[in-house]
Amino acid sequence: MADATTIDVAHAEETRREAKGKAPLLATPVVVAATTKAMEHEKGGYKRGIAIFDFVLRLGAIAAALAATATMGTTDQTLPFFTQFFQFQASYDDMPAFQFFVIGMAIASGYLVLSLPFSIVGIVRPHAVAPRLLLIVLDTVMLALTTACASSAAAIVYLAHSGNQSANWLAICQQFTDFCQQTSGAVVASFIAVLIFLFLVVLSAIALRKH
Amino acid sequence: MADATTIDVAHAEETRREAKGKAPLLATPVVVAATTKAMEHEKGGYKRGIAIFDFVLRLGAIAAALAATATMGTTDQTLPFFTQFFQFQASYDDMPAFQFFVIGMAIASGYLVLSLPFSIVGIVRPHAVAPRLLLIVLDTVMLALTTACASSAAAIVYLAHSGNQSANWLAICQQFTDFCQQTSGAVVASFIAVLIFLFLVVLSAIALRKH
Repeated sequence: MADATTIDVAHAEETRREAKGKAPLLATPVVVAATTKAMEHEKGGYKRGIAIFDFVLRLGAIAAALAATATMGTTDQTLPFFTQFFQFQASYDDMPAFQFFVIGMAIASGYLVLSLPFSIVGIVRPHAVAPRLLLIVLDTVMLALTTACASSAAAIVYLAHSGNQSANWLAICQQFTDFCQQTSGAVVASFIAVLIFLFLVVLSAIALRKH
Repeated sequence: MADATTIDVAHAEETRREAKGKAPLLATPVVVAATTKAMEHEKGGYKRGIAIFDFVLRLGAIAAALAATATMGTTDQTLPFFTQFFQFQASYDDMPAFQFFVIGMAIASGYLVLSLPFSIVGIVRPHAVAPRLLLIVLDTVMLALTTACASSAAAIVYLAHSGNQSANWLAICQQFTDFCQQTSGAVVASFIAVLIFLFLVVLSAIALRKH
């Protein structure tokens, strides 16, 4: 236990102890006040760490969502052979599920960019509850939207790869190889965005709980 | 401002003010303690209300998830006509997306039943943070699972209803009418479960925030 004769010494001691994650019990009122402040600062630091991690994760999610949108949105393949009446061509807007995918992932990308300022508010003011509550609610909604886009596109991509015997739906990936590769890549990118959203909601819940 | 000569009078005054949603500033230590207790009780009541609502919503989600599982799991239709080599039959396990649907919704139903005790703990102890944090994390994971099941099945149901010209996948709902009706019903029930999960996560986030 530190002998608090001067406040400076006590403060240095306390700063060292704070770094080890425990605050000392000192009786002098001034030092007690300083300790309380230090503990609050420590808590703020832990919440600030979560807020910084939240910001970095959002940047990753923006990259994943934009990659998914761009990859799916530019999917267009025309086969080199054609008949008199028909040219074989596959594009993302032939499939409603892929259209939904592009629209949904574009909305998610836009939301993520707009959420960055609120994430920065969380870094500057780690104890503010309102922006964090707003973010967790909207993140949850966006988690549902992104998951819906990703899994409906995944169902169609799976069907394109392997077809279905009972319904007599043939696999089209033997012909449209590039089309299938691009859509599969977009689905993988969107599932990365889903995982990041999941992690963001859990992080916000941990930061939101009271001590 | 109430003149706190006797504690009883002050308490009555305070109760009235509490009902109006504001606590008075009183200097007597005993009355201050009573006020703090009353405010805590008020907060507990508000959190208990959320916890009860959480429990009721969980019961609704169990009903929706079980209905979706049962409806999809019993889907099986054999057409009354057949060729020499082939009998036309459609069952949910012909489609991988529908198999995933049944498994995922069964897991969600099981989780919801197992989460009921934790929800009851939230009613009995409205200030406990640990069970609420556990529930919000698992609810978020289950939200993602349920959404994935629901939307991948929805993509296949849509395809069965309307087919796809470009991929030359024909609609099968002209033949398998009962099959399509049952699977559509299951998808609708699962989206109801998704909405309830979304609401549960938002409720938990509101209950978890500190004041």
